Amino acid sequence: MFSCWLSRQYWGFSTPTGRIAHLIRGSLSRTLVLSSQRRTPEFSSFVARTNTCGELRSSHLGQEVTLCGWIQYRRQNIFLVLRDFHGLVQVVIPQEESAASVKKILCEAPVESVVQVSGTVISRPPGQENPKMPTGEIEVKVKTAELLNSCKKLPFEIKDFVKKTEALRLQYRYLDLRSFQMQYNLRLRSQMVMKMREYLCNLHGFVDIETPTLFKRTPGGAKEFVIPSREPGKFYCLPQSPQQFKQLLMVGGLDRYFQVARCYRDEGSRPDRQPEFTQIDIEMSFVDQTGIRSLIEGLLQYSWPNDKDPLVVPFPSMTFVEALASYGTDKPDTRFGMKIIDISDMFRNTEVEFLQDALSKPQGAVKAICISEGAKYLKRKDIESIRKFAADHFNQEVLPVFPKASRNWNTPVAQSILEEQRSGLIRLMEIQEDDVVLLTAGEHKKACSVLGKLRLECADLLEARGLVLRDPALFSFLWVVDFPLFLPKEENPGELESAHHPFTAPHPSDLQLLYTEPEKVRSQHYDLVLNGSEIGGGSIRIHDAELQRYILATLLKG
Amino acid sequence: MFSCWLSRQYWGFSTPTGRIAHLIRGSLSRTLVLSSQRRTPEFSSFVARTNTCGELRSSHLGQEVTLCGWIQYRRQNIFLVLRDFHGLVQVVIPQEESAASVKKILCEAPVESVVQVSGTVISRPPGQENPKMPTGEIEVKVKTAELLNSCKKLPFEIKDFVKKTEALRLQYRYLDLRSFQMQYNLRLRSQMVMKMREYLCNLHGFVDIETPTLFKRTPGGAKEFVIPSREPGKFYCLPQSPQQFKQLLMVGGLDRYFQVARCYRDEGSRPDRQPEFTQIDIEMSFVDQTGIRSLIEGLLQYSWPNDKDPLVVPFPSMTFVEALASYGTDKPDTRFGMKIIDISDMFRNTEVEFLQDALSKPQGAVKAICISEGAKYLKRKDIESIRKFAADHFNQEVLPVFPKASRNWNTPVAQSILEEQRSGLIRLMEIQEDDVVLLTAGEHKKACSVLGKLRLECADLLEARGLVLRDPALFSFLWVVDFPLFLPKEENPGELESAHHPFTAPHPSDLQLLYTEPEKVRSQHYDLVLNGSEIGGGSIRIHDAELQRYILATLLKG
Repeated sequence: MFSCWLSRQYWGFSTPTGRIAHLIRGSLSRTLVLSSQRRTPEFSSFVARTNTCGELRSSHLGQEVTLCGWIQYRRQNIFLVLRDFHGLVQVVIPQEESAASVKKILCEAPVESVVQVSGTVISRPPGQENPKMPTGEIEVKVKTAELLNSCKKLPFEIKDFVKKTEALRLQYRYLDLRSFQMQYNLRLRSQMVMKMREYLCNLHGFVDIETPTLFKRTPGGAKEFVIPSREPGKFYCLPQSPQQFKQLLMVGGLDRYFQVARCYRDEGSRPDRQPEFTQIDIEMSFVDQTGIRSLIEGLLQYSWPNDKDPLVVPFPSMTFVEALASYGTDKPDTRFGMKIIDISDMFRNTEVEFLQDALSKPQGAVKAICISEGAKYLKRKDIESIRKFAADHFNQEVLPVFPKASRNWNTPVAQSILEEQRSGLIRLMEIQEDDVVLLTAGEHKKACSVLGKLRLECADLLEARGLVLRDPALFSFLWVVDFPLFLPKEENPGELESAHHPFTAPHPSDLQLLYTEPEKVRSQHYDLVLNGSEIGGGSIRIHDAELQRYILATLLKG
Repeated sequence: MFSCWLSRQYWGFSTPTGRIAHLIRGSLSRTLVLSSQRRTPEFSSFVARTNTCGELRSSHLGQEVTLCGWIQYRRQNIFLVLRDFHGLVQVVIPQEESAASVKKILCEAPVESVVQVSGTVISRPPGQENPKMPTGEIEVKVKTAELLNSCKKLPFEIKDFVKKTEALRLQYRYLDLRSFQMQYNLRLRSQMVMKMREYLCNLHGFVDIETPTLFKRTPGGAKEFVIPSREPGKFYCLPQSPQQFKQLLMVGGLDRYFQVARCYRDEGSRPDRQPEFTQIDIEMSFVDQTGIRSLIEGLLQYSWPNDKDPLVVPFPSMTFVEALASYGTDKPDTRFGMKIIDISDMFRNTEVEFLQDALSKPQGAVKAICISEGAKYLKRKDIESIRKFAADHFNQEVLPVFPKASRNWNTPVAQSILEEQRSGLIRLMEIQEDDVVLLTAGEHKKACSVLGKLRLECADLLEARGLVLRDPALFSFLWVVDFPLFLPKEENPGELESAHHPFTAPHPSDLQLLYTEPEKVRSQHYDLVLNGSEIGGGSIRIHDAELQRYILATLLKG
C-alpha cells in the first residue's frame, strides 16, 4: 500500500515568492518544448485560432494567423500585446482609413478584454526586436478583429509584478487564475499526474478503479463528513481514504490498483491540510517493501518535471530510530546538516546539577546541535527567543554555548560547562570560530524532539539573516523505515496500541519478538519524506489470518 | 461544453448475458495483445512473480518461473490449475518423496486458496496439449510452493458457468470481482479512460483540473446531497456537475479543461442512474459546434477498444425535429428502421370519425409504423398488449392494420380504413406480405411519442421471438442537434422557460427570431446518442453579456 498526497505536493510547487515565480515563468515555455520530445499537444485543434499567442517565431513569418487572447496592454493606439496561457505577442493595429472599424475595436477595447484577430506574421523593424520576449522578433499585422467580450474595471491588474493580498486573490479566483504562476501550477499538476498515470497504467499494468464516495462510517481515524440519506436516521460518510475498497479489490484479484483519490476529513483547514485532498492511492499484491519502494521511486522519476534536474534513485533511507536521534523527528529535512549529537559521555562526571539529574534517569542524555556561524548571524534576542520557545513548548532548558567565539553571552552555568568540556565539544562537534552550540539534557526522545524543532527554527532565523541553508532548487527525498509496530497507550502505558493501524505487517526479523517483547517489534511501515515534509507513506499488510488474529485479539485485546 | 457519462457507458459494456460474456472472455487476451502495439505493460515488475499465469507459452520452455495465483481446480493430486487476471495455467505437483512438503501444501490447499509456486516451464506430454487453453501447450513443474492464504468454503464457486443471483454477487462483491467478466469490465474501463486522457491531455493540450466536491447549493436542477458543516446552520452540497467551476476556469484563461468528474444527485437509483456517477467533463474556449463534435468523435475513435471494429467518423447527425418525427424521441435507436411515417394526406377525406377529429385540430396528424413480418412473428395477444400499452400510458388509440396479410385481426374501423387506403399505404410504406402497420392519430408530438415507444416495444417483442433487429456488435452513434432553445412553461404555457439552461447559445441563424418569435429559436445544444441511449451532451455557451442579459431578464423574466 502506498499513498502520496498530491495536494501537498501541489502546494510545494506553488510557493508564490518573487524569486520562484521568476524561475517558473522562465520555465513555462521550456516545459512545453521538452514535452514535445514526446509529441507536442495541438493547442489549437478544433478552435478558431490557428496559433497560440506564445508560439509565434521567425519561422512563422508570412503566415496568415488567427489568435484569440486577452489584451495585456496597448501602446499609443499602435500596438497591442495579446496574452494567452502560452505567452505574449505584439499585434500591430492597422492605421489605414479602410481599416477604421478594426482600429476602433482594438483601440476602444479595455485591457483584459477578449479579442480574436487575424493577420500576417511580419518581422519587427530592425532595432525594435525584444530579445527578452520569446516572440520578440515578430509581430502580427492585423486585418480583421472581433471583440469577443469587453472587460470592465477589474479589482486588480493581471500583471505578475502587481502585488495582491491572498484574500483578494481568493475573492477573485477566476482573475487570479490568469496569472502566469497559477497557469503554470495547474498545468504542471495536470502534466505530472498524467505522467504518473502513464507509468502506472501503461508501463506497469495497474488498473485505475474509481471507488465510491458515499460510504459507511469507519471506526477510528479522523472525523468524517456525514451525509443524511433518504432513509430517516441513516447516514453516509465521505471516505477518509479508499482503504477498505482497495483491500477488497486485492481480495478480488485486481492485483495492481491505483486511483487518484479524493479523501475527506472534517478537521478544519491548516496550511498543509484541507477538508478534501487528493492522493495517489496504490495497492499491490505479492509485493515486499523493496518492490514498493522501487515502484514509487520509478513513479516519481518518470513523472518528474522536465525543467527540473532528474531525480537520482534509489532515495536514501533512514530508520525511525536514527531519524529521531539525529533530527529529532520522523520527517527530517536532509537539505542541511546541523544534526543532533549525543554528548552524554562528556558529562558523566559533571557537577552541573540539571545535567547530573538528566543523566541519572532512564533514557537520560545530553544532546546538542551546532549552529554554524551562529555567533555571526544570530542576535542575542534570537538566542533568547529560542530558549523561550524551548521553555514554553517543551518545558525544557536549553543552553547556548560559544566554545570558540570571542563574543560571549553565556549564562553562568554555560560558562562552567565551557570550562570543563570546551575541548571535547570542539573536537566531537567540529566547532569552528563563530559557531554556537545549543545544549539540552533530558529523556532521549524529548531532548531530541526539542533540538529537532530548534534546528528548524534556527535555519529559519539564519535564512532570514541572508544565509542560504536550504537550496530552493534541491529536492531531498528520504525513506524513513522501521517504525515501531506498537506504542504504549497514552491513557494506559501498560497496554499497547498500533503505531499506525493493526493491519501493518511486522518486520520479518522481529516476528519472534511478537511473542516475547512486542513493544520492540519494528513494522513494515514506510514514509516518504521530501525536504522535511511527509509526502507519502504506506505499509506491507498482514496477509496471514492467524497472525492478524493474534495481533488483534491477544496484543491489542481488540 | 460537453459531458459524456462514463457510468452508463460502463454499464453498457457489462451486460452479463451468457453470449456477451463469452465474446468478451475471448477478447480479454486479445485486448492485452493489441495494446502491446503501444508497449506491453510489465505486469510482473516489482513483485515476487516472474510471469502471470496467463502469459506462459512454448516460447517460455525451460525457463524458471515464479507464479502467484488462485487455485482454480485440482486433478487427482497430480495437476493444479492456477488462475490470475491474465488466465489459467496447469501446474504439475511433484510426486517424489523429497518434495513431500511441497506436495502436501499443494494437495491440501482448498480451491481458491492463494499460492506462490516456483518451477520450470515444460512441454505437456504429446497428446495432452489443450488447444482451447492459451497456455495449453505447456505446464509448470513445481519445485517450491508457499501457501499465501488458505480459503474457507465460499458462498459460490468462482467459475463463469456457475450461475449466481445478482443479490449474492453484490453481497460477496470481492468474490464476484474474481470472475473473468468483472476483471474484463474494470480493466477495459481503466484502459479506455486512460486513452481518453492521452487524447485530451497529450494530443490536444487539455488541462486536467480537479474541482472541489464540497460546494454551495446550486438553485434549480436535481436534488442535492447536503453535508452539515462545522458552523451550525451552514451546509455544503455535493455538486451535480462541475458546471460553475469550469465556467470560471474559462474566465480564468484555462482555455481547454477536462476532468473525469464525479457527480452527485440525491434522486435514488434506477438502472441507468446512480446517486453518484462519473462523467468526462470538457470545456473549451473559442470553439463552435463543429469543433466540439470533431473533438468528441476523435476522442471516442482514439479510445475505442482495440477488440471492436474501429469507429467511423463523423457520426451521422439529425435535428431534434427530425428525430421526433421519425423516431418519436430525442434519442433514436438507429440500429434498425421501422421509422414513423406521416400518412395524414391519405386521410384528408376520411369518414372515420377519430381520424377526422385528429386532423381537424392544430398539429393534428395520422402516423404509422410498419412492423416487418409482424404478422408472422407477433401473436394476437402481443398486438392487444401493444394497444393496451398505448391506451394506458398515452391514452391513445392505436390501430393494427394488415394491408397484405392473409391473416386478419383487424377491428371494424381498421377494416374500413383498409378498404379506402390500402393501396396508398402499401405504396407509401413499402408494405410487404406479413407486415403489420400500427396507426395512430392525434397531435403531432403525442402521436410520434406513442409510436416511438411502440417501435421499441415491438423490437423487444420481435427479438424475444428470435428475430435479430439490433445487432449486438453494432455501435450506432448519432448526434441530435437543433433542439428548441425555449419550451412553454408547463404551469403557464404563455411563458417560456429554457429547454436546457439559460446559458445555452441560440442557433446563429435564429438570432433575429429572439426578438420576434423566441419560441421558434433553435439552440446550440447537442446530444450524443448511442443505440437509443443519450450518452453525452453539451452546448455552446453565450459569451455575449448583453445577449445573456436579454434572455435572462426579458425572455425568462428571471
